[in-house]
Amino acid sequence: MVSTESATASEREGRVLERINEYRKRRPRLLESVVTLAHGAGGKSSAALIDSVFVEAFRNPELEQLGDAAVMTLPSGERMAFSTDSFVVQPLEFPGGSIGNLAVHGTVNDLAVSGAVPQWLCAAFVIEEGFDIGRLRDIVVDMSDSASAAGVQIVTGDTKVVGKGAADGLYISTAGMGLVPAGRMLSPMLVKPGDRVLVSGTIGEHGMAVMLARGELAIEADIVSDTAAVNHLVEAMLAAAPSTRWMRDATRGGVGTVCNELAQTAGVAVILDEGQLPMQPQVLGACDMLGIDPLYVANEGKFIAIVPPEETDAALAALRSHKLGANAAVIGEVLGDPPGIVALRTSFGGSRIVDMLVGDPLPRIC
Amino acid sequence: MVSTESATASEREGRVLERINEYRKRRPRLLESVVTLAHGAGGKSSAALIDSVFVEAFRNPELEQLGDAAVMTLPSGERMAFSTDSFVVQPLEFPGGSIGNLAVHGTVNDLAVSGAVPQWLCAAFVIEEGFDIGRLRDIVVDMSDSASAAGVQIVTGDTKVVGKGAADGLYISTAGMGLVPAGRMLSPMLVKPGDRVLVSGTIGEHGMAVMLARGELAIEADIVSDTAAVNHLVEAMLAAAPSTRWMRDATRGGVGTVCNELAQTAGVAVILDEGQLPMQPQVLGACDMLGIDPLYVANEGKFIAIVPPEETDAALAALRSHKLGANAAVIGEVLGDPPGIVALRTSFGGSRIVDMLVGDPLPRIC
Repeated sequence: MVSTESATASEREGRVLERINEYRKRRPRLLESVVTLAHGAGGKSSAALIDSVFVEAFRNPELEQLGDAAVMTLPSGERMAFSTDSFVVQPLEFPGGSIGNLAVHGTVNDLAVSGAVPQWLCAAFVIEEGFDIGRLRDIVVDMSDSASAAGVQIVTGDTKVVGKGAADGLYISTAGMGLVPAGRMLSPMLVKPGDRVLVSGTIGEHGMAVMLARGELAIEADIVSDTAAVNHLVEAMLAAAPSTRWMRDATRGGVGTVCNELAQTAGVAVILDEGQLPMQPQVLGACDMLGIDPLYVANEGKFIAIVPPEETDAALAALRSHKLGANAAVIGEVLGDPPGIVALRTSFGGSRIVDMLVGDPLPRIC
Repeated sequence: MVSTESATASEREGRVLERINEYRKRRPRLLESVVTLAHGAGGKSSAALIDSVFVEAFRNPELEQLGDAAVMTLPSGERMAFSTDSFVVQPLEFPGGSIGNLAVHGTVNDLAVSGAVPQWLCAAFVIEEGFDIGRLRDIVVDMSDSASAAGVQIVTGDTKVVGKGAADGLYISTAGMGLVPAGRMLSPMLVKPGDRVLVSGTIGEHGMAVMLARGELAIEADIVSDTAAVNHLVEAMLAAAPSTRWMRDATRGGVGTVCNELAQTAGVAVILDEGQLPMQPQVLGACDMLGIDPLYVANEGKFIAIVPPEETDAALAALRSHKLGANAAVIGEVLGDPPGIVALRTSFGGSRIVDMLVGDPLPRIC
């Protein structure tokens, strides 16, 4: 892991690509001949599918960085971030929100953690014939409310209708654009041993809320999705901790996957402290009962930030002063060795490896 | 219909919005309580759904213009166009292309006819469990090939997998960004009586090729989709005819729908000349046999341009000198009255009204 303050952006970008390509060689090959649910889970299988099919065909430096958003420099010198996500959550409504809220928050958050100020969104709908228009209107109002709260505009869209049985009610794809303020630089290549790992709040609510909303489990718990736009929270933190190295929202695949992607891309080790992970007791309880590791459960209003030690207190104070960051915590540290590894110091004093997710314990949670 | 060269862009935008709102009042109300296939067909039902659900909730000037793309001005003064489309075509492969080609061409063309130079695309995939990975790879290679030919980059994406029976194989949503060159202005409010209506080539191939590829019809014909990126063709025409008023690609809903949208938004009449409509004989034959009006059949590589009379010859020559525009033709004229009406002078010397499409004769062709 080498990174100097004096490296130019393009040198850093080159090193990110080198590093990704190096790790890609060690990533699991795509062995299956058909797509499985695990390919959509955000873990090892997803990585194999993306490497083998999409990156292979589309090759270009922006895509190969596999960030939450691509960042392009315009002729004016302005930097524009661009991001997309499809939403296929089931059920469409769940405690705390709906597919409409998710579709806005997901793209807003991808832009925000890329350092951009989200500004414009587009939305494309694939609707199953027979879908109730009142229900559609409610979902669209959720989108509108979420967009207003985040300060973004939905400026263009598309609607397609497919026959009965050809979609599970409704799918929404959103894409978004935002400008990256001049001088702002976030990159896994800026991450250094000694940096702290922060999470912006309690983890695991969204995945568990959706899981329980399906009503297939014998347990009941009062768990509400954390779906929210974090762009204002991100700005508050960056104002207090301008040397923040890198951020990512911990959606599909959860905190464990985000830390693995960081460890692999930056060539560092990430050591998490189980005792510091902020969690609501009912989420912890539900995860325990179901045998699900909360580190892999999706969040829709939480992000991981890597902050230098000297700005950690300021970052944490800024996060905690904001409603969405009230439960923010320092959950770990970056080490130089062993590169590419994420470990968890357990509450019992031991430690275990936190690997990339294999399979999909919670399909279609976003 | 009033429009002066001296009107500023914002005055024109204001008038477009006024005009759209005026016509919206006269558009059919949304009477259904559930979504039907007709709501996805691009005609009257689509307009009612979009007005009543999406525009109602998302209200903002960019969206309300209902253009192929939204155009926003950045702090630097650069103008950025932004567009999205979902693709749900069945079958996924057809003579002349695949859903992969369509997903790139559709968004590239929406940007191009908005006056932008398309630059960056994103792609979001919803894949049904069990989908063959070799087939997926072929479709992704089609996307890559189309992007290369159009000179755009696919810079970011997303993949979701849904269970068996929850999608019809594969849906792709793309969004795109492009810069509008300084000084370029295209708007329905620039359209004046006396302007000519040009089409960039033969019409109806895409819709009929997909329809026949389903194998449900008793007819066979050698019809190949026209799917193609028209951005280079658009630039060639604009270089030759810089006073071009307005353009739109004639996709879902066909040339008839595009002309209706123009007539309503600009408050003009559009008179088309049946004898001038360029069509391949096999497309004309298939439409005749099936009782389908080719004016409503989707194209994926054709656009309508409104050009002032003094630049019409230059525009036509520029189009015809390009491979994709070899069969370009002047197909009609803009009149001042009756506003909002499209009429067709038939080859028999009569004339008939070309209304907005009702229902969906050809579902899921894009």
